[in-house]
Amino acid sequence: MDGAHDPRRPLALSIGDPAGIGPELALKAWLLRKALPQSFLVLADPAQLRALAADLGWNVPIEETAPAGAAAVFARALPVVPLQHRFDGTSADAAGVIEAIERAVELVHQGEASGVVTNPIAKDRLYAHGFAFPGHTEFLGDLANKGWPGAHQPVMLIWSPTLAVVPLTIHVPLKEVPRLLSQDLIVKTARIVARDLKARFGIVRPRLAISGLNPHAGEGGSMGREEIETIIPSIAHLRAEGLDVRGPLPADTMFHAAARARYDVALCMYHDQALIPVKTLAFDEGVNVTLGLPFVRTSPDHGTAFDIAGKGIANPASLMAALALAARLAP
Amino acid sequence: MDGAHDPRRPLALSIGDPAGIGPELALKAWLLRKALPQSFLVLADPAQLRALAADLGWNVPIEETAPAGAAAVFARALPVVPLQHRFDGTSADAAGVIEAIERAVELVHQGEASGVVTNPIAKDRLYAHGFAFPGHTEFLGDLANKGWPGAHQPVMLIWSPTLAVVPLTIHVPLKEVPRLLSQDLIVKTARIVARDLKARFGIVRPRLAISGLNPHAGEGGSMGREEIETIIPSIAHLRAEGLDVRGPLPADTMFHAAARARYDVALCMYHDQALIPVKTLAFDEGVNVTLGLPFVRTSPDHGTAFDIAGKGIANPASLMAALALAARLAP
Repeated sequence: MDGAHDPRRPLALSIGDPAGIGPELALKAWLLRKALPQSFLVLADPAQLRALAADLGWNVPIEETAPAGAAAVFARALPVVPLQHRFDGTSADAAGVIEAIERAVELVHQGEASGVVTNPIAKDRLYAHGFAFPGHTEFLGDLANKGWPGAHQPVMLIWSPTLAVVPLTIHVPLKEVPRLLSQDLIVKTARIVARDLKARFGIVRPRLAISGLNPHAGEGGSMGREEIETIIPSIAHLRAEGLDVRGPLPADTMFHAAARARYDVALCMYHDQALIPVKTLAFDEGVNVTLGLPFVRTSPDHGTAFDIAGKGIANPASLMAALALAARLAP
Repeated sequence: MDGAHDPRRPLALSIGDPAGIGPELALKAWLLRKALPQSFLVLADPAQLRALAADLGWNVPIEETAPAGAAAVFARALPVVPLQHRFDGTSADAAGVIEAIERAVELVHQGEASGVVTNPIAKDRLYAHGFAFPGHTEFLGDLANKGWPGAHQPVMLIWSPTLAVVPLTIHVPLKEVPRLLSQDLIVKTARIVARDLKARFGIVRPRLAISGLNPHAGEGGSMGREEIETIIPSIAHLRAEGLDVRGPLPADTMFHAAARARYDVALCMYHDQALIPVKTLAFDEGVNVTLGLPFVRTSPDHGTAFDIAGKGIANPASLMAALALAARLAP
């Protein structure tokens, strides 16, 4: 399929933390490019990628290019749009990590890339360099608000071939979750999910399942009242708007095969309620998708994996899935 | 395999709520008895079972018997040890539901049955009749304390061929969970689990995995401190006792196949964290096992299913798995 990639503008891949597995995954994804429907370019330090490819003994030619030339380069070499920052293994590399994300979004804004795919970052390494966001998702929301008209609320969707989930609260202590849930959060998030599943995924009438917070979804209030006070009224509100929403469903019985067949996406109340089933069912194939943005953004659903970085053993399945899904979703 | 069942004393099956699916599951299990390694008797109202079999058109002869004769009866008929209470479809049936559980335990205590298997009950229907326990598990703990020397702490294990989990807290609102966790709870529960996995399941050196409470197991305290303050010290304590315990593991990445291969049982902090993965992976095959008792007790891992009861369509897989597992665990 070399040379047969979709002739559209390439996807823009930010390199992620240079000390993590992002760089070797970018090399591997290019080696496996025949499995991808669309070309991609990398926002990276070409010297670092060249050294890594040599070190691993992988035959990945690195070619510096302007964005417009990347699709043509892709068949013969990994197209790299160089960052201003050169990685040198110091903490100053944080500046390049942030630059790669900003420039990937910029390329989409300028019409030179069709979507953004981001490799993993280590947030704690970025905080010392002025990065003020809980993670990628919120940073991309901020970039969207700066570059496009309107106020954009980013929503994290974890997508896999077997299950798609949206956690309504994410990286917060479990004990904070009940307090953070609100009708406003549930209703606004569900609207964005329904809109983007239709607009981007092409699901004409998306079916949303919403979990309960408590065991057995509270069992009529006997094991917690958040279902009665917050979740059920939210669902009523969404149904009144014409959305196909069911719930609150007991979380333990909503993820087996027969139950999954009844909805397109599950909205869950907290991180593990959403992530346990998807990582149990599709550990290597999960893709992190940001809904609610004016552009397509996907990411592999794993971290920097510093402990195995540079060895060439990192599994590229999630990045490959992220690239393939971005190609499917991109305009 | 008729007549070839294990010659040991039969298992004692309590009929559960007579208006639920328990009675038809008992009939079905007898029809499928060739798949079972050991005979069972039912604590039930024989007239109700006869009427139900006739109503469903199932060829299940019902034979009233004393416990000692049940194993011999099993090849030709479903052996029923009659309750004093006769079910009549009124709320007074709660007395018979409780009697069936008590008498099943009594048969084990008297050496006339080798283990207890319980069909589902509807707790709210029992409360009006003086039943003062959150569920089966606690009731059985009380019966154990009355009938056997020592203080017995029942521990719920959900067992399946692919995954075994123990929820440390169960039927409580999610917001109560952080407050209910303690080193005492974790350490005592883990000891019981390790002891019974060895004694009953024959696992020479059981490997216990303990989950975190918060996303990413708290990520070093940045998303909740229960790991640092409660879970990590508990694990250190258990290791010092010589137990094979790992954790706290991020709950979302501990249930895929490669992760599951590293432990025999997962101890989880709350209901859904334990039940989501096991019901996602093994919806029909889960068995509820009570550890910590002086006798074997298993149960199908589902409820009374009043909505489909009496139609003959209930899936007997979980009861069959519960009977088979009880046969494996019983002395």
